[in-house]
Amino acid sequence: MREPDPRRGGLSRRGLLVAGGVASAGAATALGAESLRRGTAAPPPDPPVPAAHGGRTEPFHGARQAGVGTVPQAFASFVALDLRPGAGPEAVRRLLRVLSADAADLARGTAPVGDQEPWLAEHPARLSVTFGFGPRLLGLLAPDRVPPWLRPLPAFSIDRLEERWSGGDLLLQLCADDRLALSHAQRVLLKGARSSATVRWVQDGFRHTVGAVPEGTTMRNLFGQVDGTADARPGSEEFERVVYGGADTAPWIEDGTALVVRRIRMDLDAWDEVDTPAREDAVGRRLADGAPLTGTAEHDEPDLAATSPLGFPVIAPYAHVRRARPADPVERIHRRVYNYDLPGAGGAGDAGMIFASYQADPDRQFVPIQRRLDELDMLNAWTTPVGSAVFAVPPGCAEDGFVGDVLLRA
Amino acid sequence: MREPDPRRGGLSRRGLLVAGGVASAGAATALGAESLRRGTAAPPPDPPVPAAHGGRTEPFHGARQAGVGTVPQAFASFVALDLRPGAGPEAVRRLLRVLSADAADLARGTAPVGDQEPWLAEHPARLSVTFGFGPRLLGLLAPDRVPPWLRPLPAFSIDRLEERWSGGDLLLQLCADDRLALSHAQRVLLKGARSSATVRWVQDGFRHTVGAVPEGTTMRNLFGQVDGTADARPGSEEFERVVYGGADTAPWIEDGTALVVRRIRMDLDAWDEVDTPAREDAVGRRLADGAPLTGTAEHDEPDLAATSPLGFPVIAPYAHVRRARPADPVERIHRRVYNYDLPGAGGAGDAGMIFASYQADPDRQFVPIQRRLDELDMLNAWTTPVGSAVFAVPPGCAEDGFVGDVLLRA
Ligand code: HEM
Ligand code: HEM
Repeated sequence: MREPDPRRGGLSRRGLLVAGGVASAGAATALGAESLRRGTAAPPPDPPVPAAHGGRTEPFHGARQAGVGTVPQAFASFVALDLRPGAGPEAVRRLLRVLSADAADLARGTAPVGDQEPWLAEHPARLSVTFGFGPRLLGLLAPDRVPPWLRPLPAFSIDRLEERWSGGDLLLQLCADDRLALSHAQRVLLKGARSSATVRWVQDGFRHTVGAVPEGTTMRNLFGQVDGTADARPGSEEFERVVYGGADTAPWIEDGTALVVRRIRMDLDAWDEVDTPAREDAVGRRLADGAPLTGTAEHDEPDLAATSPLGFPVIAPYAHVRRARPADPVERIHRRVYNYDLPGAGGAGDAGMIFASYQADPDRQFVPIQRRLDELDMLNAWTTPVGSAVFAVPPGCAEDGFVGDVLLRA
Repeated sequence: MREPDPRRGGLSRRGLLVAGGVASAGAATALGAESLRRGTAAPPPDPPVPAAHGGRTEPFHGARQAGVGTVPQAFASFVALDLRPGAGPEAVRRLLRVLSADAADLARGTAPVGDQEPWLAEHPARLSVTFGFGPRLLGLLAPDRVPPWLRPLPAFSIDRLEERWSGGDLLLQLCADDRLALSHAQRVLLKGARSSATVRWVQDGFRHTVGAVPEGTTMRNLFGQVDGTADARPGSEEFERVVYGGADTAPWIEDGTALVVRRIRMDLDAWDEVDTPAREDAVGRRLADGAPLTGTAEHDEPDLAATSPLGFPVIAPYAHVRRARPADPVERIHRRVYNYDLPGAGGAGDAGMIFASYQADPDRQFVPIQRRLDELDMLNAWTTPVGSAVFAVPPGCAEDGFVGDVLLRA
């Protein structure tokens, strides 16, 4: 009565692909993945029950906003709001004051005034709320402070942008290690904003849940890639320079920065048709551990000059890391990306990455990278930007202030 | 330059509502919530970093399927598939065999054959995959074993059912403590199913993330209610009887049970307009801790006969727990519910509960409860069932078998 599994034994589609696949410097490294796939490594014995982390907090108040240099939380919700027609400077100030007060309460695990579900606010789980200003809002608040880069990014040939994922007057980047805490915070903030703003778009993203992998592990995206390796560590000198400005770049305001949000659809099916060596070749890093094709460990520096015995570059000319890595040290960004996965009926699923990057000056730092990737990047074969937005991220505020208040000081 | 916060000081809308609100037996208990809301309780000091739990596993093989008596994982994805037109018994058996093999691999943290992202399978985080059979699939597999209750539930007056959230030939209930592991498992299983089935609907749900609250804490739903208190503890005699049949109910097959999935939209805005005493009155339990209005702790038995000094029943005639609680002990179910929250542009948000319950015989256990709630239940004012489906949950399988194979034995 039992049929043999058509996919056990015999030749798998993958076997065929590998057999006829692209031979690249990454081929040998695919073996690690193979043994993993065959399950030779048994899972470790059950670790102990995780300790409660819901009480962990990220301070809301301070010279800088949380959620930029904060160790990325497991969940993020990017909420773009549009001011209601007719909203003036006063309405904007009131909105920012209300949202700041609520966000501060929520971040410390206290239910804001008017929160009807205060029990859902008890476990903030490192909740952070980061405010980003679109051109219209900043124009109302402080017209002479609008930086030149605060406008839609230039058009790129790879873009297939949709209005429903682009633009916005005010961005709230909510992050937390608990999905329920995040959901509640989002609701409270949206209620507070309702009288002066409407929701333009919401993008929900996730990474590994806290504790699912050892803390400090670089995240994986839905292509299975180790993602975020080459980013500067928050607190480092490079991070400071990239995010808050250095000798070559000035932030639009001290302790302020800029946020670029790109919604990038990833064609997981097409990606899966490609064998491991070819997929590693497309990025220039190994899938198993994220090590560059010229190295052995994740944090080894890629050697862009290395060639194979046959004289070909080990990291291909079209490899994502080669194209993304700048010659000019100014052109660096701090990525803080999240996966999204919205399966739907009848193949209408939508999965990809909420690509979020912080940098002092998007025009000088982000745009040159994106331009290079637009010209040539093997990853473009499987990825499509469908949303795009730029926000000016103001400094943090003091306990008696609100985000954006420094812009009103003489 | 700074305006006063219009919601600080002065009378809040909530204050006004409480002042003019319904006086009920629950009024005094609202004080706890008030002090919480005012933030008099500081959050505890930062607890230690959570221990890794990604390696925890739930065994796939066994006499019974996982995901029924399993301590609920933080995330769930309910995936309903429809067989492609023309699929016959052989295609069904092949489908079940492939899905069982893949689910078993994924549950133990091993990437199945053909998994192109094996690294995303390394941390199963208690992944469970529970199979439920719709009438068409079971009819193809074992036509003489289709139980009489395996059909759409009777219509209820509160229902506003949508096709896109109802029915299905095969349900996969995927649960895991890591959102990324869940996403990956879902993708692998859907790929395996693709040649013989299409996705009918997917419902993604969540509870508190592991470790965000102490293990063993009853979950809260988006109304802020403690939800799941009165359920029998897995392993208990009552759980056995309710889920796998007892003196009064026979399961459709030994070690089999039934799953009812109802998608219930919750009107959070309207709920928030109501003060705490009235909201507690609607359920018969306190919001702060889930204790019955007649008791002091969550697990105290509600006293349905108790009356107030004025002679009114403390737990109202229309209270959800009174209506849901059966006189006939047969009418019990095991709930395993998840929250869903899909905010959208321009107020198009959709939030609520994926109500999932296990019981040996839906007609004798679930339907009478739902009928009583349909007739009278204060919660109906804020909740609307928009999806409904019933599945026959077969026993588990052995290592060399597949879910459903016992149905093919003589
Ligand atoms: C879905 C689209 C994308 C995917 C899947 C992706 C994936 C990756 C991966 C796997 C790496 C190597 C590991 C690491 O350093 O993080 C990487 C590096 C990088 N990516 Fe992307 N990326 C995407 C889009 C972008 C975009 C839109 C930009 C900016 C315009 C970008 C900029 C970078 C930079 C700057 C690096 C580091 C390069 C280096 O200095 O080594 N990526 N990306
Ligand atoms: C969104 C809709 C619903 C909400 C918000 C909700 C909420 C609650 C709450 C807060 C409790 C008390 C705590 C507990 O024992 O879990 C409860 C109990 C219960 N609910 Fe619901 N419920 C909903 C729908 C349903 C449905 C559709 C059914 C079944 C048809 C149901 C059956 C029960 C049962 C059997 C109990 C336990 C009663 C007892 O014996 O004390 N509920 N529900």
